[in-house]
Amino acid sequence: MPASSSPVPFEAAPGAQPLYRQLAERYAQAIATGSLRPGMRLPSVRELCQRHGVSLTTALQALRHMESMGCAEVRERVGYFARVPGRVARLPAAREPEVHEPLAPDPNLFTGINERISVFLEKARRAGPDVLDLGSAMPAPSLFDAAALNRLAVRLLREQPDILVYGPSAPTTHPEFQRAMAHHAMEFGLHLAPADIGATHGNSEAVNLALDAVAQPGDVIAVESPTFFGILQAIEVRGLRALEIPCSPHTGISLEALELAARNEPRLKGVVVVPHLQMPLGSVMPDAHKQRLVALCMEHGLALIEDDIYREFVESPQTRRPLKAWDRPGDEGQVIYCASLSKSFAPGLRQGWMSAGRWQARVQMLKFARTRNMQTWSQLLAARSVDSPAYRRHLTRMRAQLREQREQAARAVARHFPVGTRLSLPPGGISLWLELPQGLSSSRLYDEALARGIRVAPGAMFSNTGRYEHFLRLSCGLPFTERVEEGYRVLGELLARQMDALSGGPGLLCA
Amino acid sequence: MPASSSPVPFEAAPGAQPLYRQLAERYAQAIATGSLRPGMRLPSVRELCQRHGVSLTTALQALRHMESMGCAEVRERVGYFARVPGRVARLPAAREPEVHEPLAPDPNLFTGINERISVFLEKARRAGPDVLDLGSAMPAPSLFDAAALNRLAVRLLREQPDILVYGPSAPTTHPEFQRAMAHHAMEFGLHLAPADIGATHGNSEAVNLALDAVAQPGDVIAVESPTFFGILQAIEVRGLRALEIPCSPHTGISLEALELAARNEPRLKGVVVVPHLQMPLGSVMPDAHKQRLVALCMEHGLALIEDDIYREFVESPQTRRPLKAWDRPGDEGQVIYCASLSKSFAPGLRQGWMSAGRWQARVQMLKFARTRNMQTWSQLLAARSVDSPAYRRHLTRMRAQLREQREQAARAVARHFPVGTRLSLPPGGISLWLELPQGLSSSRLYDEALARGIRVAPGAMFSNTGRYEHFLRLSCGLPFTERVEEGYRVLGELLARQMDALSGGPGLLCA
Repeated sequence: MPASSSPVPFEAAPGAQPLYRQLAERYAQAIATGSLRPGMRLPSVRELCQRHGVSLTTALQALRHMESMGCAEVRERVGYFARVPGRVARLPAAREPEVHEPLAPDPNLFTGINERISVFLEKARRAGPDVLDLGSAMPAPSLFDAAALNRLAVRLLREQPDILVYGPSAPTTHPEFQRAMAHHAMEFGLHLAPADIGATHGNSEAVNLALDAVAQPGDVIAVESPTFFGILQAIEVRGLRALEIPCSPHTGISLEALELAARNEPRLKGVVVVPHLQMPLGSVMPDAHKQRLVALCMEHGLALIEDDIYREFVESPQTRRPLKAWDRPGDEGQVIYCASLSKSFAPGLRQGWMSAGRWQARVQMLKFARTRNMQTWSQLLAARSVDSPAYRRHLTRMRAQLREQREQAARAVARHFPVGTRLSLPPGGISLWLELPQGLSSSRLYDEALARGIRVAPGAMFSNTGRYEHFLRLSCGLPFTERVEEGYRVLGELLARQMDALSGGPGLLCA
Repeated sequence: MPASSSPVPFEAAPGAQPLYRQLAERYAQAIATGSLRPGMRLPSVRELCQRHGVSLTTALQALRHMESMGCAEVRERVGYFARVPGRVARLPAAREPEVHEPLAPDPNLFTGINERISVFLEKARRAGPDVLDLGSAMPAPSLFDAAALNRLAVRLLREQPDILVYGPSAPTTHPEFQRAMAHHAMEFGLHLAPADIGATHGNSEAVNLALDAVAQPGDVIAVESPTFFGILQAIEVRGLRALEIPCSPHTGISLEALELAARNEPRLKGVVVVPHLQMPLGSVMPDAHKQRLVALCMEHGLALIEDDIYREFVESPQTRRPLKAWDRPGDEGQVIYCASLSKSFAPGLRQGWMSAGRWQARVQMLKFARTRNMQTWSQLLAARSVDSPAYRRHLTRMRAQLREQREQAARAVARHFPVGTRLSLPPGGISLWLELPQGLSSSRLYDEALARGIRVAPGAMFSNTGRYEHFLRLSCGLPFTERVEEGYRVLGELLARQMDALSGGPGLLCA
């Protein structure tokens, strides 16, 4: 996947540039002119602050921006070093997202996501089930092994004829599910006691319970920016405030920015991180970052809520080790691990699980108070599947198919979308994150596409900052049929009309 | 069921009596001596206040206590009238619970239920699955029609082979489930639009979502006293305060006390009521009370959260009409109706539903933010079952069997439990609520019984007031086998030892 690691040459943004870009450009020019030679150490964040009189965040953003331009590279725990930008990829790589200053959060940013999400979802609901879904980060049913699962289901009904009418009375996760998940977790380097595993209604309930356990209304929770809208929703509905932290498409959440926030925001109680295939950027945190993040949360007493729903979609098995693998064991743990089989195995079961470290007892209590036990049925189907060679074969097949679908989708974007569209091909997963040319609106595209029977996920769903209006998430969950190809063509056509409208061209007709 | 309607003669409690009892006794003596003749009108609540200088609550409690003693009877919308106590039932009827003053809530009452519940449940969990469960209000698996359900399950897997791997992406309840529940609801007098029905993870999630929708931390929610511990848990975990309102074993929540609370507690936002087979008292609200309760909530702008999980267990079909049947339709509704098929049809599916009146859109948003969609699988199994003649036959069978089990349980209590134990045989349901002789502790019984392999539900789980320590809920969900009979014998033996210990007898050995 050259596109994900290849940089693009620096392009000056129209109009006045943010400070960090000006700073980055200064250094990029120094490299271009030879004042800075490749391999030379660049100033540290603090040195940049002192030298140029900018804030820590601006300095950090400048370095990250240089990194995304290909003018700088990070060497873990040493610093940033100058480098010469490499060749241009087939499609320009996604830029580092613009980020806001984490030290001066605007309270207005903290509300409204739910209303926005509800409006988008209600429109989708009304459009009905026959829409071409290029919006949801969910593999198509054909990518799962339904036949094997159904055979297992029939066998389970025969073996345990009471399974659908038996109601467990104590707040327990089924021991067979606990053992199976503990065993499964060992495969990706996570060692948990079965008793520390609790079943949940999907990953969503796990993250929600984690937030319930660690924070009170008015508290602050740090999140990646942009991030999965479900996380922003969960934060908003319980009266918490989301603090969006810059996130790189290559290495995930900015540890420096998070540390600054931890030092300066007394009500910061925790952070929600998607370490594997961050949604929507697709970044996979390097192990060294994972380790530093866990240490940082321990040092500052922050709950580290690990949303690991996309782990099985990471292509390289070497990079699938969860944050929780670096945590202290059992009830000393600072990491609340949340996972689900909904994306990788059986979306129809809604079977999630979690292991909450020192919040485990509280999470169990909260779970019981809210939704009682999870079905024995879905727990046993999951337990008996996940530990089998057939499951591993299924994952291998699914990863290969999704890789093909991602590449086909990227090619379709290249064919049909306006010049200036940028994307990174992520190292796995079910979706692409696109940056459209400035001025285009993915919210408008959402409405126009839905009217043509196509659903997308507009950038505005992924942040409270309003900075992603010209970003777009596209699902690669569907096999690339002619209907899908036609969908991309229509999206491209709608975007072209927006471009025309911007430049006063014929597209004004559809404004 | 003579036991539920027959009164007991007044017995003076040991030690100083509460004011309401002294007042009730004064009137009882007036009837006994002929100063007040049967059929004469008793003073109204307000007249009692003026005449004796007591609070409204004390006056109300006095009248209710006289009613439970058999010295007074209510004529709807007219008042209380004197009567002569009738014959004594086989077992003394449960007394009106002692209630606290709803106008001066003690903030200390509002916390701690979760810790207490967690301790009880953790002990039960550790005791393992082989315990004789006389605690849970859940019918035994043998009372359900598992074979029919399993046949339907296999058919569904064949018909919709993708059902376990298909993940709906929009926040929707399955239209077939909505239609089936709307049709089902018509049978008990409730007319809902299918679109106003939302699927939930059991009744618990529905009640939790209702609380999320109507109240903010610090707000007050009125509940019946005693009440199902799950309701107290749900209130506590979100930082709300529970205001316990007196509840009669015959007519349910005291409307007078609720109205007083509505007038005096500005932060009162709603009330949770179990109109059918109130847990744990077993009362079924008369229709006239239901109607008045809905009107009262409309007048005061209180959300009326109707927890209707035991409706199908009410023996008389005439009394199964929900509160919501008196509500305004659609999004003008003041009643949030919550129900589930977990108790009556398939505990293993955890399939609940709700219809939230004017909070419907907010509830849908909250549901999606927390746990996303409910399985299509369980929705369709429920939808296709509930509308069939086989389902109605199943309910008829189950009600008959539960009636027999309740009567057998009551006889076992009479055989084995200490003299002075009181109970009401409720007009349906899965459990009995017992008042043990003063001084006995059901919390202690809980521990001692668990050590002997028997689980019960101690009174302390059902209130924050501490007034139910000598009360006990016993499940009648199990067919009355020799093992169950032996369980009752052991419980009786443990209670006898407690009695002995109280009087300094040989039971001290086991203290």
